[in-house]
Formats: sequence, structure tokens, C-alpha cells
Amino acid sequence: MSDLPILVRINEEGPREGFQFEPGPIATERKIELIDSLSKTGLREIQVASFVPPKNVPGWADAEKVVAGFTRRPGVRYTALWLNDKGFLRALASNTLDMAGSISLTLSEKFLMRNQKRTLVENIAAQRATIGTYLKHGIPVERLSLMAAFGCNFEGDIPHSRVIQFIQTGVELGAERGLTIKRVSLADTMAWATPKSIKKVVGAVREKYPELELSLHLHDTRGMGIANACAGLEMGIANFDSAVAGLGGCPFAGHRGAAGNVCTEDLVFMCQEMGIETGIDLGALIESALLAEDIVGHPLPGSVMKGGALSRMRERIRAAA
Amino acid sequence: MSDLPILVRINEEGPREGFQFEPGPIATERKIELIDSLSKTGLREIQVASFVPPKNVPGWADAEKVVAGFTRRPGVRYTALWLNDKGFLRALASNTLDMAGSISLTLSEKFLMRNQKRTLVENIAAQRATIGTYLKHGIPVERLSLMAAFGCNFEGDIPHSRVIQFIQTGVELGAERGLTIKRVSLADTMAWATPKSIKKVVGAVREKYPELELSLHLHDTRGMGIANACAGLEMGIANFDSAVAGLGGCPFAGHRGAAGNVCTEDLVFMCQEMGIETGIDLGALIESALLAEDIVGHPLPGSVMKGGALSRMRERIRAAA
Repeated sequence: MSDLPILVRINEEGPREGFQFEPGPIATERKIELIDSLSKTGLREIQVASFVPPKNVPGWADAEKVVAGFTRRPGVRYTALWLNDKGFLRALASNTLDMAGSISLTLSEKFLMRNQKRTLVENIAAQRATIGTYLKHGIPVERLSLMAAFGCNFEGDIPHSRVIQFIQTGVELGAERGLTIKRVSLADTMAWATPKSIKKVVGAVREKYPELELSLHLHDTRGMGIANACAGLEMGIANFDSAVAGLGGCPFAGHRGAAGNVCTEDLVFMCQEMGIETGIDLGALIESALLAEDIVGHPLPGSVMKGGALSRMRERIRAAA
Repeated sequence: MSDLPILVRINEEGPREGFQFEPGPIATERKIELIDSLSKTGLREIQVASFVPPKNVPGWADAEKVVAGFTRRPGVRYTALWLNDKGFLRALASNTLDMAGSISLTLSEKFLMRNQKRTLVENIAAQRATIGTYLKHGIPVERLSLMAAFGCNFEGDIPHSRVIQFIQTGVELGAERGLTIKRVSLADTMAWATPKSIKKVVGAVREKYPELELSLHLHDTRGMGIANACAGLEMGIANFDSAVAGLGGCPFAGHRGAAGNVCTEDLVFMCQEMGIETGIDLGALIESALLAEDIVGHPLPGSVMKGGALSRMRERIRAAA
């Protein structure tokens, strides 16, 4: 376990992922309440909203109101998701977000067609246009995001060679406009990854692109989320997306009622217990997870929020001794 | 990942663990239905009942009826749990079980007092007497089981040195009667282990006792179950206890509504996807998991039973192509 990172940075996506996925309407002020609660945990980055068409994702029709209502805490980056120029311009107009551009490529055409109604070729053209929009507004673009990087429910296994090929495509798309891609996010959008494939893909990317900083976006649909994160840690990966209480899931992935993103507090628990710093107060994060469960009104898949943190148990044992 | 085993053997403990833990009464014939369903999955070992005092564990008051009612399938070992001579003699009298003795040591005195009302010293005397009972009835004793091997909710962290010390004690207890301990089960009874501590403890045991075959009994209370199993696999461990659909948990461990044992079908899924043979039909196992959920009448924590096996998804994709 010698390649474990010293410090892990977590990008909290619970608000965006969760409220996109939940069927029932959730009041704007409760979304804001969760974001403000998360802001106090020590998290350094929170994705707070999704600027997508309300007719597709009614849960985010109030994105403007949410981003206007939360309290910015110094040292925390607040980001949002969008899938097209219209969404980007909505986010930009808010004036409360930390704006950063990203080149987003999906490795499965079948999934891309379902999710965004584009072919692979059409998506490259769309990304080119999006980069132009970012540059026009002075928004930095240093990140490449690869969706369905490990497999797809509609296309099957994704060969490692395709991951390398799409990184190449992303790097070239940036270079066309004089941009240098510094970070690549590998997303296991439909939960096809195992610890073995995480290590293989990360190893292959590292071999070809040692200069890139990698991050993992892991879904826990088949229960592999934390094991896959651990495999990432063992490969030295220090950047993870996750969702408090395991909120979320992708409404387009075709799963029935399965878990969503890897759970933030379970990931933080694992890091802390293995001696990896996160800068996050696990007790405060568990409070946020319980708040999230209260807000959505049904049990969420997180484990440590139910089983309890060991740090608190150790304190209780010491106090009783 | 070069030390992954080629073949993993799974000891299914769902029936015993699950029906011990469930609050509501479950009909004897439904317990039998689950055992018979599991018998058809390719599992080679199933712990089918718990012969414990009905006043402590009312869910197993019908242990005799369950073990008299299931259908033995050739090639499957059917075992049971007991905690004292009385329980052992009840199991022996059934004539339908594969009887094997085990030396059982608990590494936390506080947990032992709660669970079995014995001190560490009293437990050693009790184990000595139990070995005598096994030998008197011609039952083989080759296995040592260490409970709370990674930590305890009432005592805190368990140092690695104590694991080594208790293996020594177990080996000596056997040697007193001319027995050779061949297998050691390390149980993370209260879910204190992480992948890092699994690797450290297993490494320490291997260094001192390279001749012992190790198995892991992992609880998923803090969401680390599958990651811990993966750490075990990476250390070459080829024997795991698990519970279909994640049934179970320990009623004495002081958790509130948290998950129980690591989930069998999630573990089998991980093995299969990483190229490790289990001899188990994952589709049939998912059917058993759905049956278990139907029997207990509430959602169970297993993930693959909800997210779906990839092997079936690959077939569907191939058929559609």
C-alpha cells in the first residue's frame, strides 16, 4: 500500500447528483440547507446545481434560485454542471459559481445517443464549439472528462485502448486552441469497473500520459464503489468525486433503484482510517448525510452514517476507561 | 494484482446470520426454501442454522426443524453454529450436518463478556473443554476462529500482536490434544478493518505462520466489506465467509440498523469480473438473494441484486448486436 497518497481532495457532487435523481419535488431552501451544511465540513469543492433543461430534469428547474441562495464560504469552490451552451450561460449569469470549463467525451456512442442524442463525431464538434464559448467568456479549460470509461450498459466493455484514444482526442481538442489539459476524470458512469480494471486503466493512462493528474468518478451500482476507490488510492490517485450519503445515480443509465455515486463519508472514513488526510470533519459530514436523508425522505445507501465513525467510538471508549 | 487467487471458496452464512438477526418470526419452511435455493447455486458450503439458546436468539428456536427439512445436495457441506456443548449436541443429534469442530477465541474481553459472559481466561478453559467434547464424539478439529480480530466497539483497536498471540494460544490449545490447526478465520466482527489493516494483519500472520490457510469473515457495517475482501484477495486469500443479499449482522455488536456480513453475490461478482473462479452461478445466486429479500419482507443491502450482473448484460448486448 506504499503508493497511497498523503492527501486526498474530494469533489462533493451530492447536491447536483442527488436532486437530479430524486423523483419527488424538493424545496429550494432544503437544497440550500444541504449545500450550507456541506460547506462547513471541510470540503473544498462542492457541485451545487445542474443547469440542464427543466423538461428533462425537473428536479433542477430551480437551479438559479439555489445558486443565488447558498452562502459562499471562503476556501470552498462552488461549481455546477451543464451540458450545453444554454446551461453554461445560465450558470455564468449566476455570478456565485467558480466557473471552469471542461472537455467532456463519452466513450460509448450508444450511451451518448441516449444521454445527449449525439454521435461520437457530433460530440467532438459540439466540444469544439463549447471550448470556443468558454474562451469567448474567459473561462479556463484544463480538464478532460471521460464518461463510460470502464464499460456501458448499452455497449458492453470499453477497451483500455479507447480510453487512451479519447485522452488523445481531448488533448488535441485543447491544443487546437492553445489549451493544455492538466486533469483527466475517468468516470465509471454505469458501474462496470472492478479494482482490477481500475488499476489496469489507470496504469495504462499513467504509462502514456504521466504528466496528467487523474481523478475518479465512481458509481456504486454494483457495490464496487469503495473497493474501486481503494484501488485508485493504491495507484496514488488523490482526486475523487463522491456524493454525501451516496445520493444520486444517473437517470439515463437504465438501472432500477440501485445506488448512485460512491458515498463521500464512507470514502472519507476509509481515507482517515488508512492515514490519508482529507481535511474533512467526518462527524460534521455524517450530520450532512443524515440531513440529506431527511431532505429526500427515504433511506440513502451510505454505511458509515449508520454504522458510526470509529474516531467517535474511540473517544467514547477512552472516556469510559 | 498478481497475488489474486485462481479459485475462491465461499462459505455462505446467510441463513444462519440472517435468521438470527431478523426481528420478525420467519416460517421454518421459508428458511428451508432459502437453503434449498442456495444449494443449487454452486456454493460448496452453507451454514444453515444456529443452535443457540432460544431465549437469547428466538429466531433459531426451530433449528432442529430446519436441519431436518432441507434437501442435502451432493458436493455441498452443510454446517451450523453453536456456542456451547448443549448447542453442539443438538447439532450432532440432527444427523444431517457436516460436523466439524473449531476453536473459537475472541480478542476483546469486553465483547466476549457481552456476547458470551466469559473472561478471556474463562474462554480458554471453555475451549479446552469443548475440544474434549469434540474428540469424545470423533469430530475433527482443524480450525481456529478469531473474533473481533481487527477492532472492537467496546475495547477499540486490536493490535496486530494480539492476533499473533491468540493464534499461538489456539495452536497450543490444539497441540495439548495432539491436534494440528490448519485453518484460521480472522473475523472483523464489528467492522473495524480497512483494506490497509487487512493487508497488515494478513501479512503479519503469514510472516509468522506461513503454513496456515487463512479465511476472512467481514462485516459491512461501515461499507468497507467488499474493499476489505479485495484487499484479502490481493494477499492471496482464497476463503471467505459471506451472506447472500448481505443478510445478517451481530445482535450483540451495538449497531443501529447497519448492514451485516459482506454480501455473497457482490463478492462473487467482483471475483468473476476479476477473472477469479468461484464455481458459483451468479444469476442463480441473485435469484436466491431476491428470495431472501422476499422472505425477510424488507430491502436487503446487496447491490448486484439491484444493479444486475454484467454477464447477463453482455449477453443482452451481444444478442441485440
